[in-house]
Amino acid sequence: MIIVLKAEATKQDADEILAKIENAGLKPLYMPGTERTVLGALGDERILQGLNITAHPMVDDVKPILASYKRVSRELYPSDSVVHIGNVPFGGEHFSIIGGPCAVEGLDEFRQSASAAVKAGAVALRGGAFKPRTSPYSFQGGGLDALRVMKEIKQELGVPAVTEVMDAADIDMICQHVDALQIGARNMQNFNLLKAVGRTETPVILKRGISATIEETLLAAEYIVDAGNPNVILCERGIRTFETATRNTLDLNAVAFMKRKSHLPVIVDPSHGTGIRELVGPMAKAAVAVGADGVIIEVHHEPKNALSDGQQSLYPEQFAQLMKELDAFITAAGRQTTKRKVA
Amino acid sequence: MIIVLKAEATKQDADEILAKIENAGLKPLYMPGTERTVLGALGDERILQGLNITAHPMVDDVKPILASYKRVSRELYPSDSVVHIGNVPFGGEHFSIIGGPCAVEGLDEFRQSASAAVKAGAVALRGGAFKPRTSPYSFQGGGLDALRVMKEIKQELGVPAVTEVMDAADIDMICQHVDALQIGARNMQNFNLLKAVGRTETPVILKRGISATIEETLLAAEYIVDAGNPNVILCERGIRTFETATRNTLDLNAVAFMKRKSHLPVIVDPSHGTGIRELVGPMAKAAVAVGADGVIIEVHHEPKNALSDGQQSLYPEQFAQLMKELDAFITAAGRQTTKRKVA
Amino acid sequence: MIIVLKAEATKQDADEILAKIENAGLKPLYMPGTERTVLGALGDERILQGLNITAHPMVDDVKPILASYKRVSRELYPSDSVVHIGNVPFGGEHFSIIGGPCAVEGLDEFRQSASAAVKAGAVALRGGAFKPRTSPYSFQGGGLDALRVMKEIKQELGVPAVTEVMDAADIDMICQHVDALQIGARNMQNFNLLKAVGRTETPVILKRGISATIEETLLAAEYIVDAGNPNVILCERGIRTFETATRNTLDLNAVAFMKRKSHLPVIVDPSHGTGIRELVGPMAKAAVAVGADGVIIEVHHEPKNALSDGQQSLYPEQFAQLMKELDAFITAAGRQTTKRKVA
Amino acid sequence: MIIVLKAEATKQDADEILAKIENAGLKPLYMPGTERTVLGALGDERILQGLNITAHPMVDDVKPILASYKRVSRELYPSDSVVHIGNVPFGGEHFSIIGGPCAVEGLDEFRQSASAAVKAGAVALRGGAFKPRTSPYSFQGGGLDALRVMKEIKQELGVPAVTEVMDAADIDMICQHVDALQIGARNMQNFNLLKAVGRTETPVILKRGISATIEETLLAAEYIVDAGNPNVILCERGIRTFETATRNTLDLNAVAFMKRKSHLPVIVDPSHGTGIRELVGPMAKAAVAVGADGVIIEVHHEPKNALSDGQQSLYPEQFAQLMKELDAFITAAGRQTTKRKVA
Repeated sequence: MIIVLKAEATKQDADEILAKIENAGLKPLYMPGTERTVLGALGDERILQGLNITAHPMVDDVKPILASYKRVSRELYPSDSVVHIGNVPFGGEHFSIIGGPCAVEGLDEFRQSASAAVKAGAVALRGGAFKPRTSPYSFQGGGLDALRVMKEIKQELGVPAVTEVMDAADIDMICQHVDALQIGARNMQNFNLLKAVGRTETPVILKRGISATIEETLLAAEYIVDAGNPNVILCERGIRTFETATRNTLDLNAVAFMKRKSHLPVIVDPSHGTGIRELVGPMAKAAVAVGADGVIIEVHHEPKNALSDGQQSLYPEQFAQLMKELDAFITAAGRQTTKRKVA
Repeated sequence: MIIVLKAEATKQDADEILAKIENAGLKPLYMPGTERTVLGALGDERILQGLNITAHPMVDDVKPILASYKRVSRELYPSDSVVHIGNVPFGGEHFSIIGGPCAVEGLDEFRQSASAAVKAGAVALRGGAFKPRTSPYSFQGGGLDALRVMKEIKQELGVPAVTEVMDAADIDMICQHVDALQIGARNMQNFNLLKAVGRTETPVILKRGISATIEETLLAAEYIVDAGNPNVILCERGIRTFETATRNTLDLNAVAFMKRKSHLPVIVDPSHGTGIRELVGPMAKAAVAVGADGVIIEVHHEPKNALSDGQQSLYPEQFAQLMKELDAFITAAGRQTTKRKVA
Repeated sequence: MIIVLKAEATKQDADEILAKIENAGLKPLYMPGTERTVLGALGDERILQGLNITAHPMVDDVKPILASYKRVSRELYPSDSVVHIGNVPFGGEHFSIIGGPCAVEGLDEFRQSASAAVKAGAVALRGGAFKPRTSPYSFQGGGLDALRVMKEIKQELGVPAVTEVMDAADIDMICQHVDALQIGARNMQNFNLLKAVGRTETPVILKRGISATIEETLLAAEYIVDAGNPNVILCERGIRTFETATRNTLDLNAVAFMKRKSHLPVIVDPSHGTGIRELVGPMAKAAVAVGADGVIIEVHHEPKNALSDGQQSLYPEQFAQLMKELDAFITAAGRQTTKRKVA
Repeated sequence: MIIVLKAEATKQDADEILAKIENAGLKPLYMPGTERTVLGALGDERILQGLNITAHPMVDDVKPILASYKRVSRELYPSDSVVHIGNVPFGGEHFSIIGGPCAVEGLDEFRQSASAAVKAGAVALRGGAFKPRTSPYSFQGGGLDALRVMKEIKQELGVPAVTEVMDAADIDMICQHVDALQIGARNMQNFNLLKAVGRTETPVILKRGISATIEETLLAAEYIVDAGNPNVILCERGIRTFETATRNTLDLNAVAFMKRKSHLPVIVDPSHGTGIRELVGPMAKAAVAVGADGVIIEVHHEPKNALSDGQQSLYPEQFAQLMKELDAFITAAGRQTTKRKVA
């Protein structure tokens, strides 16, 4: 339920109402604005109605939140949220580009891929240290060693980095090395992991599950925000359909839809979303045009020798060319490309 | 099989080889180029090899066509085909916009929707006269009366028009009234209908089936071209997936993929591809960015009173606004917006 | 709308009400029963209400038909319909087995496959004369020659036969040679073809489209019944999903669901539904258990030399073995296996 | 790689070869049989070939394992594995039925549902203590209290019980209360959880993910077995498709396929697989017919008051009736219904 206070309502009025909500066993939300203060109350709607909040003299309007997700809905916060990974903003007028290899393979390898990405325009790095692999016999990632590599290189290059977390037990260790946590598609409904990253303040890139509906994706984000962490970036990375010519079907409808329904930033992963190197560029441009807040792209210094996902990784020169071509679309979309801030 | 002739080969050499191909019961193709002449031979590969065409002194190279589709493949014709509906080009550097209501409802109604669309920038009209409807109890289209309306209004406005054909028996009548035939998603594998439109020279907009793979779509186009009609425009209009928030999942991956594999122009239908008015604009922009050659958009002068698809039809002013916004993306994509040629 | 008359209502009462329905421009239905007569009225519900039929003294109850499909719904006819192909019943307590090759390849070939099928227990034959093929370069069926073969062999063996119709223009010719028409999955929403077979009295096996919902399938059947032909047998043949280990995903949920919602018989095609010879038997047994009224199975005398679908065709001895094993499940399901009636 | 020893090979020969495999950094497998001993070697095929095992005088044959999954494949173990939950066998000639409510709601509630299930023929209990829920605002399960309830009631009734594990941290606690762990569909590719249950000896029911291919499902089982726990029971529970009339599409093709490819037992969950009470019975019968080794069915003493999944839970009398009807199909399938062993 959304409670809009009158312009003349004081902080004390707000506190009074919030206390009433909390005492009834519901979750109170406090959202001061420039003109009006808005309060929220999450929980059993029948209890809410029993509170008779409309009767309070400083309450202007009370309306239900129609969506099943509440905190991530624009019904509650109409403006765009801007989430920062390090000093890189996602959301609002910004368009920010994350690049890097699928997996962190070694110090030299990561340095080459990462520096090529940053040189071409990436303002944040990606790289896998813990890899969810379909087969137990496939390369499972470099673990702590890979995290150390990421930390060294991101400091060298002066950009933030993100890596996937697969286990709540690894969260602290990962947070000591990089700047953001990624929840992978396979774990989008690993609710205990969602709650665990929700108990941190570290930004989270939440990838849509391979067969998750848009509503399920927003409810997964709701788990994280509800647990206390508002810093969620949604990521469309392709869904599983009958089509086999492409690895997944990148669902840009979902990007446009989520941008309308949620205030959270939404980025697009055209590498996993297509699985084909030649399609990464066209779909990155389409992501800009549809209104995404950024892209996350696989770049490898030698794709043909990559330990994983080589067929969808861009060569450094392809990535550099794409970065140049994207600019005209970013401008057409009324956005600004985030540039690396050199200290 | 593709047969590249030497630069010095004459028309007589080509004819000699083509006759050999035809005599063996295979289909010969003649494709003169500016520098080299290329021949094609379609049919049983074993017979082809038995012909020993490599031995001919004027043959420079012989290579197989790897794709299951042949005539629509870039392996055979590497350059973009440009297909004209009336005087409106699709393909190459052009970006052309088709607009109009879902169904032709009456003379006045169609005049209002169509003139608004043309005034805002549409260079061709759409409108359904024969409607494939899931239920036998739904409005089935205006038939011949609707065709007459289309003819009158398209002449008034000086633009070409396209309408769906559901039955081979209606082809002649439709061709007397409008400029292009549309094969709808439900009929994409109605092979007898494909062959029938293939026996005309009228341009055909071939919509991808709701669960057709990209390969099946290109093979459906192959049916039309193989029957004699090269004027095929492919149309991505969304596929059926598990997602229910949107009517269909508009598959822009497929647009990028088909543009690489086929020389045929590809347009996008963001109206059916999303089913939601607010998403039509963002996805039209994404279609431009991904490399489509045009869009086909539902516009209705009074969407809330439309007999079908009202929820996905743009209001005239929304369509006009979108046309303006598209321009920057069309320029960014290195394309030129096709303008109406006033006689 | 369903109109239940009082027990004492006469035929004259019924006629009076039916005339009233017809005069209002709606479709009247007359369904005399052993205890009560039930009438139906199809069309605009608002007109129906305006007729004030409840006021008629001989009307006991009036209730809406909730489903979007009307004539095929159990709301209108609660009992199982039994549809006959030749003298073979489908529906009610019967379980009937159709067997034969994918395509009719020649007189001797079809005789061998068909006689093996009939000897083992098939009571009706299948075989394709007109083949819908994804590629224009694949074998398109034997056409009229194949129909003549089917007629000769079915008469030799004393069983009815079914073949697919792809074009309304072929209906008469097909009906002169065989006993039932099949609408294939690709044509399930070829509405003009549905209407055309609906204007005959020939039984129709309507295959579910590869991505048709259950509701769309029942509405396709409604097209045929609404056009005048009540002799429709529904056929579940597998849907297209993300799974690629099997050719399609045979949806037995749909069989159980359609049997509850519709009075029409439902058969299962485990050959196309799995695409793998070894799975045909287990899924045929499952079809019996779930409540299907029959199965249609591909049997070929030499699967490895079949012109199409060899990998999913049973060898004659496998088919014979399966027929034996099915009996115990048919008995467990409380059904009776239809046996060939020798004149 | 599979290494078949000669009949006269001794345990010492086997050990010699196993040591060689292990020394090369590969995983050795020892599978003594009644006539022959078979060894396995898992790992990099190139290293395997370098070992030149064929040269050993006691080696009769060496062949690769073609499937991507190894330990769960019938290539390695051709016979059916029988996995016991408590004293209840799954696999081989047995057909075993698990029943109980979706969630454990309280002591009295669980006692009523569970005793009805057991009285009617269930030989093991199901019930959720930790519930994976799409929304953070839905009932999340009773946790430890629910486990205590399960332990008390299962002891009262003298049957084993199974419950879902969502977090590796809960495994020990769950194992102290019940007899088997369930991995839910959403966690099928939570690889850390798979490895964790793989380090126990507790039987695991592994549910297929909502959009997991058959191969991915078998590779998820491989994770568990490879980690040391061979006691895996696969469970088909429906996949996500375009069809919305049913909650999921129960894929019995997959059951038939997995039974052919893997030696592990496979059970079916028709409750989640359909989501509709009336379809549970027909699909349970179909599961028997297709060759499943058991079913897991939701039964609730008062479905209309259930905290979750009420619409798909059977009433006790429906479950009892179904148990009776299943018997004829179990007999037709050549199986024996597992009966409760009363001490």
